[in-house]
Amino acid sequence: MGVQVLKEIIRISEYQGKAVEDLDYEVVERKGKGHPDYIADAIAEEVSVELSKWYLKHFSCILHHNVDKVLVVGGQSWRTFGKGEVVQPIRIIVSGRATTEVTDKGERITVPIGPLVINAAKRWLNKNIHMLNVEKDVIIDYRIGRGAAELERLVKTGIPLANDTSLGIGYAPLSTTEKLTLSVEEELSAKCGSKGWEFLGEDIKVMSLRKGKNINITVAAAIIAQYTSSLEEYREHKEKIKEEVYKIADKIVEGNVEVFVNTADDMTDKTGKGLYLVVTGTSAEHGDDGATGRGNRANGLITPLRPMSLEATAGKNPVSHVGKIYNVLAFQLANEIYSRIPKIREVYVTILSQIGKPINKPQILAISILPEDKASFANMKYEAEEIANQFLSPEYFKKMTDDIVNGRVRLF
Amino acid sequence: MGVQVLKEIIRISEYQGKAVEDLDYEVVERKGKGHPDYIADAIAEEVSVELSKWYLKHFSCILHHNVDKVLVVGGQSWRTFGKGEVVQPIRIIVSGRATTEVTDKGERITVPIGPLVINAAKRWLNKNIHMLNVEKDVIIDYRIGRGAAELERLVKTGIPLANDTSLGIGYAPLSTTEKLTLSVEEELSAKCGSKGWEFLGEDIKVMSLRKGKNINITVAAAIIAQYTSSLEEYREHKEKIKEEVYKIADKIVEGNVEVFVNTADDMTDKTGKGLYLVVTGTSAEHGDDGATGRGNRANGLITPLRPMSLEATAGKNPVSHVGKIYNVLAFQLANEIYSRIPKIREVYVTILSQIGKPINKPQILAISILPEDKASFANMKYEAEEIANQFLSPEYFKKMTDDIVNGRVRLF
Amino acid sequence: MGVQVLKEIIRISEYQGKAVEDLDYEVVERKGKGHPDYIADAIAEEVSVELSKWYLKHFSCILHHNVDKVLVVGGQSWRTFGKGEVVQPIRIIVSGRATTEVTDKGERITVPIGPLVINAAKRWLNKNIHMLNVEKDVIIDYRIGRGAAELERLVKTGIPLANDTSLGIGYAPLSTTEKLTLSVEEELSAKCGSKGWEFLGEDIKVMSLRKGKNINITVAAAIIAQYTSSLEEYREHKEKIKEEVYKIADKIVEGNVEVFVNTADDMTDKTGKGLYLVVTGTSAEHGDDGATGRGNRANGLITPLRPMSLEATAGKNPVSHVGKIYNVLAFQLANEIYSRIPKIREVYVTILSQIGKPINKPQILAISILPEDKASFANMKYEAEEIANQFLSPEYFKKMTDDIVNGRVRLF
Amino acid sequence: MGVQVLKEIIRISEYQGKAVEDLDYEVVERKGKGHPDYIADAIAEEVSVELSKWYLKHFSCILHHNVDKVLVVGGQSWRTFGKGEVVQPIRIIVSGRATTEVTDKGERITVPIGPLVINAAKRWLNKNIHMLNVEKDVIIDYRIGRGAAELERLVKTGIPLANDTSLGIGYAPLSTTEKLTLSVEEELSAKCGSKGWEFLGEDIKVMSLRKGKNINITVAAAIIAQYTSSLEEYREHKEKIKEEVYKIADKIVEGNVEVFVNTADDMTDKTGKGLYLVVTGTSAEHGDDGATGRGNRANGLITPLRPMSLEATAGKNPVSHVGKIYNVLAFQLANEIYSRIPKIREVYVTILSQIGKPINKPQILAISILPEDKASFANMKYEAEEIANQFLSPEYFKKMTDDIVNGRVRLF
Repeated sequence: MGVQVLKEIIRISEYQGKAVEDLDYEVVERKGKGHPDYIADAIAEEVSVELSKWYLKHFSCILHHNVDKVLVVGGQSWRTFGKGEVVQPIRIIVSGRATTEVTDKGERITVPIGPLVINAAKRWLNKNIHMLNVEKDVIIDYRIGRGAAELERLVKTGIPLANDTSLGIGYAPLSTTEKLTLSVEEELSAKCGSKGWEFLGEDIKVMSLRKGKNINITVAAAIIAQYTSSLEEYREHKEKIKEEVYKIADKIVEGNVEVFVNTADDMTDKTGKGLYLVVTGTSAEHGDDGATGRGNRANGLITPLRPMSLEATAGKNPVSHVGKIYNVLAFQLANEIYSRIPKIREVYVTILSQIGKPINKPQILAISILPEDKASFANMKYEAEEIANQFLSPEYFKKMTDDIVNGRVRLF
Repeated sequence: MGVQVLKEIIRISEYQGKAVEDLDYEVVERKGKGHPDYIADAIAEEVSVELSKWYLKHFSCILHHNVDKVLVVGGQSWRTFGKGEVVQPIRIIVSGRATTEVTDKGERITVPIGPLVINAAKRWLNKNIHMLNVEKDVIIDYRIGRGAAELERLVKTGIPLANDTSLGIGYAPLSTTEKLTLSVEEELSAKCGSKGWEFLGEDIKVMSLRKGKNINITVAAAIIAQYTSSLEEYREHKEKIKEEVYKIADKIVEGNVEVFVNTADDMTDKTGKGLYLVVTGTSAEHGDDGATGRGNRANGLITPLRPMSLEATAGKNPVSHVGKIYNVLAFQLANEIYSRIPKIREVYVTILSQIGKPINKPQILAISILPEDKASFANMKYEAEEIANQFLSPEYFKKMTDDIVNGRVRLF
Repeated sequence: MGVQVLKEIIRISEYQGKAVEDLDYEVVERKGKGHPDYIADAIAEEVSVELSKWYLKHFSCILHHNVDKVLVVGGQSWRTFGKGEVVQPIRIIVSGRATTEVTDKGERITVPIGPLVINAAKRWLNKNIHMLNVEKDVIIDYRIGRGAAELERLVKTGIPLANDTSLGIGYAPLSTTEKLTLSVEEELSAKCGSKGWEFLGEDIKVMSLRKGKNINITVAAAIIAQYTSSLEEYREHKEKIKEEVYKIADKIVEGNVEVFVNTADDMTDKTGKGLYLVVTGTSAEHGDDGATGRGNRANGLITPLRPMSLEATAGKNPVSHVGKIYNVLAFQLANEIYSRIPKIREVYVTILSQIGKPINKPQILAISILPEDKASFANMKYEAEEIANQFLSPEYFKKMTDDIVNGRVRLF
Repeated sequence: MGVQVLKEIIRISEYQGKAVEDLDYEVVERKGKGHPDYIADAIAEEVSVELSKWYLKHFSCILHHNVDKVLVVGGQSWRTFGKGEVVQPIRIIVSGRATTEVTDKGERITVPIGPLVINAAKRWLNKNIHMLNVEKDVIIDYRIGRGAAELERLVKTGIPLANDTSLGIGYAPLSTTEKLTLSVEEELSAKCGSKGWEFLGEDIKVMSLRKGKNINITVAAAIIAQYTSSLEEYREHKEKIKEEVYKIADKIVEGNVEVFVNTADDMTDKTGKGLYLVVTGTSAEHGDDGATGRGNRANGLITPLRPMSLEATAGKNPVSHVGKIYNVLAFQLANEIYSRIPKIREVYVTILSQIGKPINKPQILAISILPEDKASFANMKYEAEEIANQFLSPEYFKKMTDDIVNGRVRLF
């Protein structure tokens, strides 16, 4: 692809709006790893990674698959102070498509898709939802459409073709409210199950609203019934969470922060029925459903007031599925530009594929840069273009695929 | 709620960015009614409407439910010129929660949830996907979590409480590219199955990219195999679609439009394997999965470069589920402001709930107005505030619920 | 197969026991066509027939399949006098194996197994359970293991090989109690839905106990709630059934008959909760499960005091699955011997296959004849042997397969 | 129940036929514990036992349940010498009904039915199918109809009422062929996985045909691929099994025994495709389905030439479900009579319930005794009647229930 072609593809302009921080208000959300939507994303991705590794091991290349439709059907449980029990398991249905039969030099090889899916899902749950008894409280099922491939016919060399007309969007840097939202969930989540924090489940949702300089952080955090013997103790747990969030905020924000924890609680009901008590750490245990693609975007956040792609990144194959790799590219390119070019206030990246065309030949790769006050956009343009050029190289995509398969890229 | 309170909630400001039309580029997408994601949305909503009507008929109020997690698992089919067949049905799993048992004056009434779900799904499919043989090619299943209610304890008067911390976003008016994208799908879709258009399936996806004044419209349209006897005829069908899109565009756009139809087709393969042929009108027949909330937003479009809510509107109860009603409100309020106040170029509405608080008492209702050149924002502010005040009245929400249940509101 | 070989296979002996009619007591049962086990049998067989016809149409031979594991999972319904409703559908899972892909002269043909299964099941239900709304109150699902065949490699000529080591058992004639049991169900069943009998559902189970000369007939008959406005009318329905059974008995039995209808009813409960009321005609609507092979044997009866095969006949392929065809053969051969050879009181046929051997070369074909008083067994032996020889001919098996596929053979 | 009533119920007569051993031929079958039908029985029963224990622990009585419809849907695997893999898991669907909600003194207690079912099934599989990786190669699902009970209303005292019109049949003693058939499976099965027998899977089916004095034993034994490196080794495994069966036979039979192992094998195919190789020890891994009630009767055998009940014993509640307890009673009573009364050649027991009547008040309890040559039936009659009387006491049923729950009774 010559320079001329790239010129037509890459469009770099000066951003016309205000920086997010300068806007009157911001709304930012993060669904934590015990949230049903996050679980659906995580299992979709885990299955994709497992499949990719299996393909790589057996055929030295990643074959076509797309398992970006995982459904988490909530179960049923009862909880009271000090105890509780799942009475109807969480049901997880992994659906999508994969190459399930491969002909290699006349030999027909069947992919052990079932055990692979089940293993991947269980391993993730075991590792990440510490109070969940996977073998008893979860049913893993799958509906993977079958596909066949002849290894000889696969074009292994060259750059893959885009499998869809799809859009990736990214930006840098995170605003303070965004950093805060992400940190609150990640730091709280890291404590789950640790000493003194046995009561904290992984289902933590953080919603931040900045109005002017004031930030309201609403945290919905699942409290483990087994570690909460009374309404009083429940209240203490909430206090502890609140204090922790204030501590986290202190490190990040200068302005006025107000923290709300489990605001829907009915703190007058001594039976605990009106509280956010769980047995397993996730609200999926008592009816909350989840689905892939309904949670965080590729930077870990939901930022409705920013440009944002609707594509699910989780579960898609990391080679040719532009709905995944273009979103990763967009965030990585934005970060690269922001970190390498001085005096940038904000940068947005938008990339749109052309179905059937090489993935490094999108319809458009648009970059919008908002310089800091008094900095000149003109000087930034050429540098940004150069960086963008590098991102459209086959080497970049190869490395990204490799990074995704090895879990080195945030996807949700 | 006094005026003072509303003052704190409603924030009206001048929009700080450029109008979308003035931006360098735009990307707009619409998934047509045969797209698996649309099907998942439509069935979720149909089930919610059906449930709402059942509750209204029996108890004069809409009880709690949320069926916003419908999964469409793709089937398997073979297609060639002139014929084809589904060999593995599409499987539709309706999941969510509903009030399934109601105690009314001591009598226990069971909601016929199963037949109701099945009926609603089949009816929609029968009515909307004209070549689909629902009784043979689709399996409808459901996993609805059970819930019980005592009618006496339900607070029937007063304004409902928000069931979640959730965000609604809307704007007005549509840009030309947006109007075009919507019209193309809707006008093509209206022709499906009509005389001369028997070959056109409802699975139509439109993706528009505007660069400056030029708009590229990429249409992926499912072509019915039974009405396509040869590669030549397939080519004619594509031509016919292309011409039609140009006609539609002529009515809406003045600039340069280029139309692409089924660009991934391999037009050299005479067996038809590389073409977008279908038997039923939807790609769900051969493996494409769909899920509620993964398709169009409440104005019928996916507009990644505009502020956009990730919430699914489909399937949620139309009384208290803010993820649904706040998105409807945001678009309706934006449209109302735009149509009633002169000289507005663009208006954006953002509304964030407070879980457990009355739905007409959000955390924030923010309105950003971009006046036309030379028009003054100051004059618009008070009028917008007044309109916003009306939208936060119980009457507005009651009417909206009523409109949703009667199918008078676009949701996706 | 020479005469010598047949001599070793066919063993004809004089029966050593008493005739069933002379025994002190008899117990005979028949599950009617609305019974969940019967439904499971009927759908299994319907699917096998449909598949067989499809194979015959496309390849002129019946390919391997075995769908003899159908599970009917009961639903949930509420019933009261005059009305009722299914609230959770009956779920029918068709499981087994079939040839789903066939290579014929290089072309790969996929069997539309899903639609075929669904169609077959729905058609049978629509035709046979008159009050059941199949589209609303039933979910048909399937789990058919896939199999591939290369048409060229199939041995189309010659006699098929037994696919299992399996036993068939038959006898003739029916005893009076057996005739009575069969007639009661069949004649009642024939009335379902007809004028004056709208109240009668197809789920009719007849259990007869003969002690000496007295026969107790216990009939469990599902009564349609919609046609039963009161406890009084329910009582009248039961009376009507009882009278009808007495009429039927009068034609068949000379001894003392006593008829009991729905003996578990609580006739004191005016709400109808303790009665056998249904909405659809089958108890599967409120929880009764059914499974293939758990109901009637190949003569339509369960006769625990007679020799009896445990093999399910329903759903197995009618070409090589000895569990099916040997049971048909055993009953047909017994009937043939009984009708052609005079003065036989009873005849029993037992046939055991040898897996992998031609189906007309069983391990043993044993015939036990009980002559009438004073008749001589010696004269019967050679004639019976001759008839048996004819039944081991390829022509007999071909005709049987043909008869089964065309529904001319009773299987349950 | 007075003596008079019992007189009408208990009928004792002299058996009119020949002893089984004197018949010309016998056919006896046993499905081993790795057979899909056995697995379905075992899991059904394990779930019932687990439920019973749960009810006993929480309410001191066993509540209503019936889970006698378990379906084992075969998976898919590939096998070759030395290795193999499950590619599609075995799916086990536990269906039936249970009391899932209990009101006790106003408190509503929910039975953790899901985890309980899953646990019971997994534990049995883990313990009994030694090469099966339950967590990876099996999906356990369930469809248990819900039921509610108010503890106060349950009649805890007194004898339970029969829930159905159902028949139990038993006899004693086992014939030599029967003993042999049972021993072959049990002794082989006991070796599975032990030193030197790692190659032997639990799916062992034994079919015996006695013609006169000669017994043909056909053994179908699953051979573990991972412990079979070549066709030669496979042959050795078969030889080893054959020798073992001859050894077992030597201890039991005096006549001529011939043993056949895996007779359907294609021993000329060096790829191993035509052999009975498995990865997990059960043929359910590659497509063989199983269902409760389709395997062994309550004495562990299928004896088609003997009187035999069709009722599944597995999974039914051990308190009031006569389909279960009457079969246990019939075999236990036959054994008791046989062991306590000298000079009995054979004894048959038949017992038929009356739905809604106390379980110790059947319609008939018939006992047929065949005395040894020259022994007098007359002397036996009164003793048998006395024993039968004891079996119709509440104490007997209580003890039987207790024995079943504690696994002290053979059921299949």
